[in-house]
Amino acid sequence: MLQGSEKRRRFRAVIEYDGSAYHGFQRQLDLPTVQAEVEQAIARFSGQDTTVLGAGRTDSGVHACGQVIAFDLTWAHEVEALRRALNASLPFDIAANRLDEVESSFHPRYSAKRRNYRYHIWNRSTRSPLRHGRSWHVAKPLNLTRMNEAAAIIRGVHDFATFGQPTSGQSTVRHVFAAQWRSEGEMIIFEIEANAYLYRMVRSLVGSMKAVGEGAWSVEKFRSALEAADRDSAGQTAPAHALFLVSVKYDE
Amino acid sequence: MLQGSEKRRRFRAVIEYDGSAYHGFQRQLDLPTVQAEVEQAIARFSGQDTTVLGAGRTDSGVHACGQVIAFDLTWAHEVEALRRALNASLPFDIAANRLDEVESSFHPRYSAKRRNYRYHIWNRSTRSPLRHGRSWHVAKPLNLTRMNEAAAIIRGVHDFATFGQPTSGQSTVRHVFAAQWRSEGEMIIFEIEANAYLYRMVRSLVGSMKAVGEGAWSVEKFRSALEAADRDSAGQTAPAHALFLVSVKYDE
Repeated sequence: MLQGSEKRRRFRAVIEYDGSAYHGFQRQLDLPTVQAEVEQAIARFSGQDTTVLGAGRTDSGVHACGQVIAFDLTWAHEVEALRRALNASLPFDIAANRLDEVESSFHPRYSAKRRNYRYHIWNRSTRSPLRHGRSWHVAKPLNLTRMNEAAAIIRGVHDFATFGQPTSGQSTVRHVFAAQWRSEGEMIIFEIEANAYLYRMVRSLVGSMKAVGEGAWSVEKFRSALEAADRDSAGQTAPAHALFLVSVKYDE
Repeated sequence: MLQGSEKRRRFRAVIEYDGSAYHGFQRQLDLPTVQAEVEQAIARFSGQDTTVLGAGRTDSGVHACGQVIAFDLTWAHEVEALRRALNASLPFDIAANRLDEVESSFHPRYSAKRRNYRYHIWNRSTRSPLRHGRSWHVAKPLNLTRMNEAAAIIRGVHDFATFGQPTSGQSTVRHVFAAQWRSEGEMIIFEIEANAYLYRMVRSLVGSMKAVGEGAWSVEKFRSALEAADRDSAGQTAPAHALFLVSVKYDE
């Protein structure tokens, strides 16, 4: 409709979504994904086809409070009008909290310096219906002190081959800037900041640290598992529905 | 099939539920309700028919963190075994957090002295997908100070006929022990404690106080509406999905 001679502008948005209904962020043939929903929402109000780039390819069922996306569009109006049009067109489980215009060189994934994830464990004998689909129910009491000893081991630059496969390239070395467990009542929350992650890395780390917390693994066994740099040394992979992509950081 | 000569014992449970899928607490023919689900769950593991009494008849869509129920059952095992059997039999959106044996004279509704409800308003221009179904999205900024001036007016003993109908009996007088608004980030939370409530009273109060918060109503108009003791003087009724029955208090 508006395409052709008019210049396309690049926009960046911070989006929040409930991942329950989606097969992850990245477009897949014939499956509902967050990327496909956002692309369809943009097409509905603008009549333009565009590719939505994302900072992180969240897995099936994973949520986001601060996923960062970018797309090119011919848009003759205010940036805030674009944000409102996008939100009006998106389904109830996806929303754009912020939107601004960026340089055409900006890429949400390649330009990103740090990514923050959060994981929620509901640690009480009884499951919580009001926290269903947002937390992992672990009935056995977890030892937070020991879990934080394990979290301290992963801070810094390490080969994380035990805890995941690379999504592109060969290297399994990643830099973890921060990793910590804390409790809010009966919810135990893990927060991690790293330059990037291997496929399933946060969920694999959480599953092994939970084994430490319930006493099935010693802290030393966790350290040996990391040092083995071998995928077979990992414990259980924690479920997806309790993981949140919190934010993505850029140099600016 | 333990019924017959064995003595039935009365049990009280504190239950949590996500009300999204239910037509309220109270049993209704051919409609899913919390009461019917709990009665069916008990029948599945015990083979016994029982009537589940509830402290509050929460409306369609209303949630509960601390609804109190009671039922009679022939049970030859430990109380904790009954709680585990009940939770194993209940669907994912209902759970029993506590269960104990009580005197046969205990009635969750008639014995109750105070009930606490909470209401969540998400007060930001953009809706929040991760808070969908748990909060009322109000985009216009609300004035918390004025809303608390309105909340102060309802504290004490008043005729609340403006804000609801009695569910039984004729009196529309209720005693509000506490009523206050507070904010947690962009979530505005109303907490109220009263001896009892009229039908839809909390949602009707919240809708009118929201009118005060956005400036559509003055605090004086709110006061006049209460004093009118006339259902037609109320503002909008706030939606059900953001209301939580938090706790029920007894003399003990």
